Amino acid sequence: LSTNDGSGERQQLMLTLAYDGRRFSGSQRQGSRRTVQAELERAIGALWEAEAGTVFAGRTDQGVHATGQVASTADLRPDLDGRTVRKALNVRLPADCAVTRVERRSAGFHARYDATWREYRYRVWTGPRQPLIEGLVAQRERPLDVDAMRAAAGLLVGTHDFAAFAGGGEGVPWSERQREPRGTVRTMFRSGVRTLSPWWGEAAGGTLIEIGVAADGFLPRMVRTIAGVLFEIGRGERPVEWMRELLVGRDRRLAGQTAPADGLILWRVGYPGDAMPGSDPDAQVGQ
Amino acid sequence: LSTNDGSGERQQLMLTLAYDGRRFSGSQRQGSRRTVQAELERAIGALWEAEAGTVFAGRTDQGVHATGQVASTADLRPDLDGRTVRKALNVRLPADCAVTRVERRSAGFHARYDATWREYRYRVWTGPRQPLIEGLVAQRERPLDVDAMRAAAGLLVGTHDFAAFAGGGEGVPWSERQREPRGTVRTMFRSGVRTLSPWWGEAAGGTLIEIGVAADGFLPRMVRTIAGVLFEIGRGERPVEWMRELLVGRDRRLAGQTAPADGLILWRVGYPGDAMPGSDPDAQVGQ
Repeated sequence: LSTNDGSGERQQLMLTLAYDGRRFSGSQRQGSRRTVQAELERAIGALWEAEAGTVFAGRTDQGVHATGQVASTADLRPDLDGRTVRKALNVRLPADCAVTRVERRSAGFHARYDATWREYRYRVWTGPRQPLIEGLVAQRERPLDVDAMRAAAGLLVGTHDFAAFAGGGEGVPWSERQREPRGTVRTMFRSGVRTLSPWWGEAAGGTLIEIGVAADGFLPRMVRTIAGVLFEIGRGERPVEWMRELLVGRDRRLAGQTAPADGLILWRVGYPGDAMPGSDPDAQVGQ
Repeated sequence: LSTNDGSGERQQLMLTLAYDGRRFSGSQRQGSRRTVQAELERAIGALWEAEAGTVFAGRTDQGVHATGQVASTADLRPDLDGRTVRKALNVRLPADCAVTRVERRSAGFHARYDATWREYRYRVWTGPRQPLIEGLVAQRERPLDVDAMRAAAGLLVGTHDFAAFAGGGEGVPWSERQREPRGTVRTMFRSGVRTLSPWWGEAAGGTLIEIGVAADGFLPRMVRTIAGVLFEIGRGERPVEWMRELLVGRDRRLAGQTAPADGLILWRVGYPGDAMPGSDPDAQVGQ
């Protein structure tokens, strides 16, 4: 088979993945647990009839969803077009995980190392409990001050030491961030808060709020910690300035509670040449 | 207890309900099966510490969702405010069903007989399979011609004999419609098709289509039969004019396949004084 791009190595497939995180023990392979990577590698292996390795652009925890996760894997079947590969993988994947796009990349492509930014969105509904978004959007009845949250979120834009927002909770070792060669400094390209029209009908007494963040990288649990901080500010328990104090203080113990996983979505991963996510707070859902 | 409105009878509670229809055997009580009515009456009974009867505005089949179902029940606790009743019921209801609003009505109020219109929405995504909407939006990869569907849907507005769109499928006896005193004639106030921005991110190669219908009443499976007809027209297998032929022919056997339950949502129920649903196809989601 001439399965190469002229360099003597196999081309890579870039797979865009969407999943409902509720029944996965996160994205990354962990022994025999049900993870997105394990399911994907099983599906690719069945299609290639060979063992398949994958690299994921971002790590997501249990209960965290994705609409734009990216995985790369060696392309063992350059004779198949992308649509055929997508459909063949989807019939082999469970209902809560799907490949939404398949593109070919050069042999050197690496989903994680080549990514230049990641975008996450965190959604919370403040209103009467809504069964149609159960597990897919965080829900809490107490209203939140969107303007205060937006002002605080804006303080994160730029290059900062995000040590105050790293780790926390069980299962994520505190030492994770020390393994990162660049420590806890990241560049946040976008950090905003907006309201969306609820897609499930009557908005009786509630507001759908979306926190959107895009950065060159995120520390473990960073988005959920930011969301937890924004909730405290939104409830009026802390002033907007608290966000700046946390950035300066660089102490995770000060940042309070991590927001629950169900509101979090890995939205998109950017590669060289992709347009950076806009920060227009009035943009419509899905744009 | 002075639990009456002066007429000597108990006031009624009007409960707005939302549910995820997937794990319910429909809305209406059916022996020991898990239905929305059974769960609601159990919750009310536990709260009142007395047996509770309810009336539902609309009947929904297994797998059909609701954001604006309405139920009425006698108010045995006029000392509690609506918010307290709502919260007390929600802690007693399962996660896939919730009361989103509680209002008081006079003793004569009847959720079904007093309703002047019902609005349903049917949603279908034509694109790569999306796990985050699995079971909540119908999914099919083949594209649909939205303009043709919209033209055909518009033909339903007005007072017509909808016999061609009644019943079908197992479990709904053909005789259902004969029990209706007014036969199969209904007045359709609104019937439209529009596209929505997908709320789950990247719209890679797909379109989110919503069929919206509002009428003074619907025959069993009528919305799903209309959706099935619109899909055939949208796929180009039938001309727009077929819709008119079906209305005139009044024969259910001609209308083809019933669309699956997962795309259907009982959106709202209208009572005297409520504004009729608008027909603006450019309106945003949730409005």
